[in-house]
Amino acid sequence: MPLSANNPNRSSWLYVNKNSDFPIQNIPFGVFLTKDDIITIGTRIGDTAIDLGALHQLGYFDGIPLTDDIFLQDTLNDFIADGRKTWRAVRDRVAEIFDAENTTLKNNTPHKERILFRLDEIEMKMPVYVGDYTDFYASKEHATNVGTMFRGKDSALMPNWLHLPVGYHGRSSSIITTHIPVHRPQGQTMPESGKKPVFGPSKMVDFELEMAFITTDANDLGESIPVKEAEEYIFGLVLFNDWSARDIQKWEYAPLGPFLGKSFASSISPWIVTLDALEPFRVESPKQNPKPLPYLQTKGKHAFDIHLETGIIPKGGKETTVCKSNFKYMYWNISQQLAHHTSNGCPVNSGDMMGSGTISGPTEDSYGSMLELTWNGTKPIKLKDGTNRKFINDYDTVVMRGHCENDDVRIGFGQVKTQLLPVFKKK
Amino acid sequence: MPLSANNPNRSSWLYVNKNSDFPIQNIPFGVFLTKDDIITIGTRIGDTAIDLGALHQLGYFDGIPLTDDIFLQDTLNDFIADGRKTWRAVRDRVAEIFDAENTTLKNNTPHKERILFRLDEIEMKMPVYVGDYTDFYASKEHATNVGTMFRGKDSALMPNWLHLPVGYHGRSSSIITTHIPVHRPQGQTMPESGKKPVFGPSKMVDFELEMAFITTDANDLGESIPVKEAEEYIFGLVLFNDWSARDIQKWEYAPLGPFLGKSFASSISPWIVTLDALEPFRVESPKQNPKPLPYLQTKGKHAFDIHLETGIIPKGGKETTVCKSNFKYMYWNISQQLAHHTSNGCPVNSGDMMGSGTISGPTEDSYGSMLELTWNGTKPIKLKDGTNRKFINDYDTVVMRGHCENDDVRIGFGQVKTQLLPVFKKK
Repeated sequence: MPLSANNPNRSSWLYVNKNSDFPIQNIPFGVFLTKDDIITIGTRIGDTAIDLGALHQLGYFDGIPLTDDIFLQDTLNDFIADGRKTWRAVRDRVAEIFDAENTTLKNNTPHKERILFRLDEIEMKMPVYVGDYTDFYASKEHATNVGTMFRGKDSALMPNWLHLPVGYHGRSSSIITTHIPVHRPQGQTMPESGKKPVFGPSKMVDFELEMAFITTDANDLGESIPVKEAEEYIFGLVLFNDWSARDIQKWEYAPLGPFLGKSFASSISPWIVTLDALEPFRVESPKQNPKPLPYLQTKGKHAFDIHLETGIIPKGGKETTVCKSNFKYMYWNISQQLAHHTSNGCPVNSGDMMGSGTISGPTEDSYGSMLELTWNGTKPIKLKDGTNRKFINDYDTVVMRGHCENDDVRIGFGQVKTQLLPVFKKK
Repeated sequence: MPLSANNPNRSSWLYVNKNSDFPIQNIPFGVFLTKDDIITIGTRIGDTAIDLGALHQLGYFDGIPLTDDIFLQDTLNDFIADGRKTWRAVRDRVAEIFDAENTTLKNNTPHKERILFRLDEIEMKMPVYVGDYTDFYASKEHATNVGTMFRGKDSALMPNWLHLPVGYHGRSSSIITTHIPVHRPQGQTMPESGKKPVFGPSKMVDFELEMAFITTDANDLGESIPVKEAEEYIFGLVLFNDWSARDIQKWEYAPLGPFLGKSFASSISPWIVTLDALEPFRVESPKQNPKPLPYLQTKGKHAFDIHLETGIIPKGGKETTVCKSNFKYMYWNISQQLAHHTSNGCPVNSGDMMGSGTISGPTEDSYGSMLELTWNGTKPIKLKDGTNRKFINDYDTVVMRGHCENDDVRIGFGQVKTQLLPVFKKK
């Protein structure tokens, strides 16, 4: 059964630019602070932010079983915990309320004044409280590139890589949303001389172009989620810049994995686009050879055709697009990731976040990190202002965008845009 | 200034057995469910549990700035966030109320009925909500043992190990307290043949004898905690059994570190013993050579002399002690761990937990895991019932205990006791 909110023939009485990421078929979920300093859960159509808390108080969700304060929260965790039936009912109702044919709210100016905001009247906040965050390493191209650089072409992929989605636990406390600046981290590194480690500002701050999915409550301790059911527990996706300090990471990571080279900051886009909204953009994943073990086998289309790009904006300068990639390149799909993660009985809760790992494609301009794009700094990138970059400079802004598009509709994620500041100085 | 609650000459009007871990000088903090199904924050003297919520409601904390509901919570996070001054004031007041010389509560039977519980009338719960959990790898003996087994004696320690406290981000959602059984995890492993990986129950389930510290809110994104100030942000310590599935871990861990081999369960003792209560048991850490970089240099006594032991109880059998170790063996102390963790600007919050890593001592009976005690299964351990163990069997119970002792006082942690059940079966 097609999802009613996805009807490509519906248009909204709210203005939507032709190239907008947020037509009435998207209806993502986020959290924002209004001009009156009230925090609420909301959605967005075109460039209009919609206060779902106000809509609910005014009775627009009558008939949908929702607690009174479900949208008057500073995170989406409780709403996500209500489960897919509820998300769908709310998305369908929002589509009806803003359908061009429906004049109820359209003609009610006092209600509109309480419900609708211009984007410059709100401030986007973290959409969820992330209890646990995991990062996978699921792009074969990325793993091969990094492996080639550090271990040579012949042993680029570790023996386990083709058999399971390699992942590691990350740090939740440093996940932030768009427009929150990040300070260049300090840390311990080993200089090229290899003699004595030093402590100081990282010299190799990098972005990683990723996406991340947000889960609902999935399982209790000891239980596993079968791969066929995994998508039931995935609420939606965001863009994800997994900031990385390559020099810190290189020195610290053996044998227990990345730690402080990652945990200084991780930036996500503020609107969670539901898996439902991405339904029209399902595609087959790359063929897996060898065939995975049964607990990881999926049939059909579990990848999504999402165009991704990253740009660098030097201070006061113009943006240079440095890579174009696609979420469909992922070797291990999100169902496989969630099934693998719970295969040992590890509980997954509402608001947990799982990153894809850097999404690199087959061509040199589709690599998802400066490490790969400049081949570990040996091939600097020239920006539009004529300056070169091996890694990210102080005051550079990194922006990531993503969208899906077919003949009928464009569903996008907006952006995650983050400026890198110099090392933090205590005032 | 000595801490008033630590006065070794004070005794309590509550009965305390000579060998108790919980004299009036301890006053740890925990969360329990009372026989009336009320969840509250409490402490313990001898074998009596004390409801701090009831004490507060009855006015026993008058004069200490505390919100009305600070103890009527299902976690200690808010109380811990109140900071060290508040923890100290509450601990001092509890010591006064239960001092043998003080008859106010002692002679008030209706109050005692609301405040005091026998241990069999309560159920201990997780003391904190762990937002983020990190595990270090800070025992040189353990790192050397594991390194020798897997890489040979000459390259046992990685080049970074003597320069920084190696650590990795762990999974918070599977942290449980004592008496919660754990199911044997399933997972992907590579059989010894090395030909094709398989999926099934882990054959090498192990304990790791660790301690963990619990923090208060320490820093904002970008800020670092200087090593000299680190202890200000450490609330207390618990015993920690870092369950490990060695076969899953071995196959998955390269290059991003331990993942599902760890995240099926992590068990902690329910009473958090404050750093203040451990004050009399400070000792020097092992000498560090080479000298750490300045951001990791500590002077004085930052290790603690805590005797640790682990026992295995087969189903229906008697306990066999399999190892005796000590927290003082840690090469990297907790101040160094917290300073390193925040050196990149990673925020640490109230309720975060940092594990020490397996605490192995210099002798073969002081190794903190079956992996080391049986030298990767090559030297099985004989239990009192005559059976052998390479790793942990289904229905075995693993119990860890810890205490400090001098001529005046014994301060202990009680125990963390966990039964391993067979693989989870859906009902």
